[in-house]
Amino acid sequence: MNILNIIDKKRLNKHLEYEELDYAFNGYLNKNIPDYQMSALLMAICINKIDDKEILDLTDIFIKSGQVLDVSAINGPLVDKHSTGGVGDKTTMIIGPIIAACGLKMAKMSGRGLGLTGGTIDKLESIPGFNVNLSIEDFLHQVDNIGFATIAQNENLVPMDKKVYALRDATATCESLGLIAVSIMSKKIASGSKNILIDVKYGKGALIKSKDDAYLFSQIAEKIGQKYNCKVKCIIDNMDMPLGDNIGNSLEVLEAIDILNGKNNYLKDLCLKLAATLISMGKDINYDEAYKLAQEAIDNKKAYEKFQEFVKAQGGDITKIRVSPYKVMVKSLKNGQIVNIDAHKIAQLARAIGCFRETKEDKIDYSLGIVLNKRLNDKVKKDDILCELYVKENYNKNIYDQAINCFEIKED
Amino acid sequence: MNILNIIDKKRLNKHLEYEELDYAFNGYLNKNIPDYQMSALLMAICINKIDDKEILDLTDIFIKSGQVLDVSAINGPLVDKHSTGGVGDKTTMIIGPIIAACGLKMAKMSGRGLGLTGGTIDKLESIPGFNVNLSIEDFLHQVDNIGFATIAQNENLVPMDKKVYALRDATATCESLGLIAVSIMSKKIASGSKNILIDVKYGKGALIKSKDDAYLFSQIAEKIGQKYNCKVKCIIDNMDMPLGDNIGNSLEVLEAIDILNGKNNYLKDLCLKLAATLISMGKDINYDEAYKLAQEAIDNKKAYEKFQEFVKAQGGDITKIRVSPYKVMVKSLKNGQIVNIDAHKIAQLARAIGCFRETKEDKIDYSLGIVLNKRLNDKVKKDDILCELYVKENYNKNIYDQAINCFEIKED
Repeated sequence: MNILNIIDKKRLNKHLEYEELDYAFNGYLNKNIPDYQMSALLMAICINKIDDKEILDLTDIFIKSGQVLDVSAINGPLVDKHSTGGVGDKTTMIIGPIIAACGLKMAKMSGRGLGLTGGTIDKLESIPGFNVNLSIEDFLHQVDNIGFATIAQNENLVPMDKKVYALRDATATCESLGLIAVSIMSKKIASGSKNILIDVKYGKGALIKSKDDAYLFSQIAEKIGQKYNCKVKCIIDNMDMPLGDNIGNSLEVLEAIDILNGKNNYLKDLCLKLAATLISMGKDINYDEAYKLAQEAIDNKKAYEKFQEFVKAQGGDITKIRVSPYKVMVKSLKNGQIVNIDAHKIAQLARAIGCFRETKEDKIDYSLGIVLNKRLNDKVKKDDILCELYVKENYNKNIYDQAINCFEIKED
Repeated sequence: MNILNIIDKKRLNKHLEYEELDYAFNGYLNKNIPDYQMSALLMAICINKIDDKEILDLTDIFIKSGQVLDVSAINGPLVDKHSTGGVGDKTTMIIGPIIAACGLKMAKMSGRGLGLTGGTIDKLESIPGFNVNLSIEDFLHQVDNIGFATIAQNENLVPMDKKVYALRDATATCESLGLIAVSIMSKKIASGSKNILIDVKYGKGALIKSKDDAYLFSQIAEKIGQKYNCKVKCIIDNMDMPLGDNIGNSLEVLEAIDILNGKNNYLKDLCLKLAATLISMGKDINYDEAYKLAQEAIDNKKAYEKFQEFVKAQGGDITKIRVSPYKVMVKSLKNGQIVNIDAHKIAQLARAIGCFRETKEDKIDYSLGIVLNKRLNDKVKKDDILCELYVKENYNKNIYDQAINCFEIKED
């Protein structure tokens, strides 16, 4: 077999066999095939696409590049969820406690953020003392005891994804439905759960751009699930709006706490929907019944108690969460109605404020962020506060205009 | 400017501006942009294509990466020719002497072979003593004196092409009409001639696969010529058949000598056509008149005398050319008519025999090769010799069957 022939086939939009994908990707993992050949193949895959058979084959190759987590020690229905990314996404921190309160178990491995995306691991680390690096043994033990634990992605699971993802990130080859499906599903299958929920985000700021693509993604994700005897459900969701009112690491944990204490907004509705789907899958009951259980878990504070248990078990102290004392109030320039809050612009604003890392080595100031005071369709008057920016002492003054530009207001 | 945005635009099939191409390619030449990002961009260009404006811009960027040869010291009409590659192509060695005999000048820079393509420089080096590394001064001096000189591609001319070509070769991104045009035309323009003939080969074994693509190539090559005040003509030619009867370095020089001494075959016809076109361009006379001059130069041996002058001036001794004493006679298995001699299979056979290098560091045994004893449409009888293989003492016996397979014979 020859890597040039394999690249050439995909360049000419031909089907690659299992053996060819295996040769290329394992060759890359084993350093027999250099970055520049893999990036050419990835670009050909991005543009010419891979078919369902290739996606299934590649997922299998990815899974076999590492271990599959043995979750047999966990008693009770194990569920897992993944979100394909969204601005201000703190759903894991809310759903985990809800489903644990309802008697399910979730062993969640999460990622760090890079570029314009935040990561659940970074958000949890904004809780002083929180340990995201439990041993696998302690991790599974906590899941079995409390019902929910979150750790950073384990290096032994799907090492191929880590290597290929880093290259995709550096070569503008992230936006391939097939490669996204392979990346997500290989990690989910290797994590051991047989009940997987995927929150498929689409929109301008997302990797998946359109609703049609989100549907295509759902179909292939479910097909991959079938092959490995996993129930897979997908919830398709537009991400043109930020997920909730708070963006930024500490601020997002605080909003999760607020929601578990009864705050109502679009994010809460989404979390109930996701939790209900997981509960109906794990308990094999109908969705409405499951939704009622999720709602009750919030109303009777059982979910919040689980959250506290979870944070404490991983060493965190929520009383020590810190937000920046330097605040900028962004005020409306006119009277009118908010017709759009651009999630992509909000993410860029968060980056300008300093919420994210630019390179993998950067340290984050967890205390920075944005709180939206107005929501979509709200009526506003001139000088009403649109949002509050939690900034560094010496912040760049340009962010004020940048913040104003995130809100599209139709004048009265 | 950001390389990821540039790659992304081409991935999405959008037009790249001069500044963007300049940033990407000069960044690559200056080692600010790594191989793996350039290979992703090259693959996107291969699949999504570049438009005429992008080809013109990129050619300009390539030319400006190095020097442009100053040919002002050469008296008389200077012409140049390029062939896009063919199996057994020894046209340069035949055309150069013909046009020199007719009073034109050609300062030819040529390449070495790699993979399935032979290179004029390797072929000339099979003449013991032949020096392909003249200084630019000696090179131009010889062109002015004798009318013809050939040296290896100069490192100071279009260094970007050398770097980008090596990457294209290693990433299956050679087959892009746009990139082929940029590569060829930037080198031709930088070589200083104002009369350029391109022998555009198409076919299964060529980089350019179809006649339509060959026409497209011709159009853009002529357009590039216009921009730099160069007359550019293209002759489109199918390369499904080998160019002449001999394949292999020494054997090809010997066939060139035979043709200059009056041997008739398809190769001679092609060389006369190419030479006539160059003569009509350089002398500004009509094609038929030019063709007559070319024919006469062969008939009265003036072209052969020029060939001898040329080889001697560059230190070569044609009396010392050596071919392997180990020969294999390949005989027809049946009576019938030859309906195809597959050039691509012949090239693979030549590779199996050992005519080409596999890596840039390999040394070549110039004495190996193939002589075709039968031509297309010839009638053959069982046991007639189809071709003679000039092989190493310990050759791989499988090549016999491989040779048989190059000939398609329709049984009587």
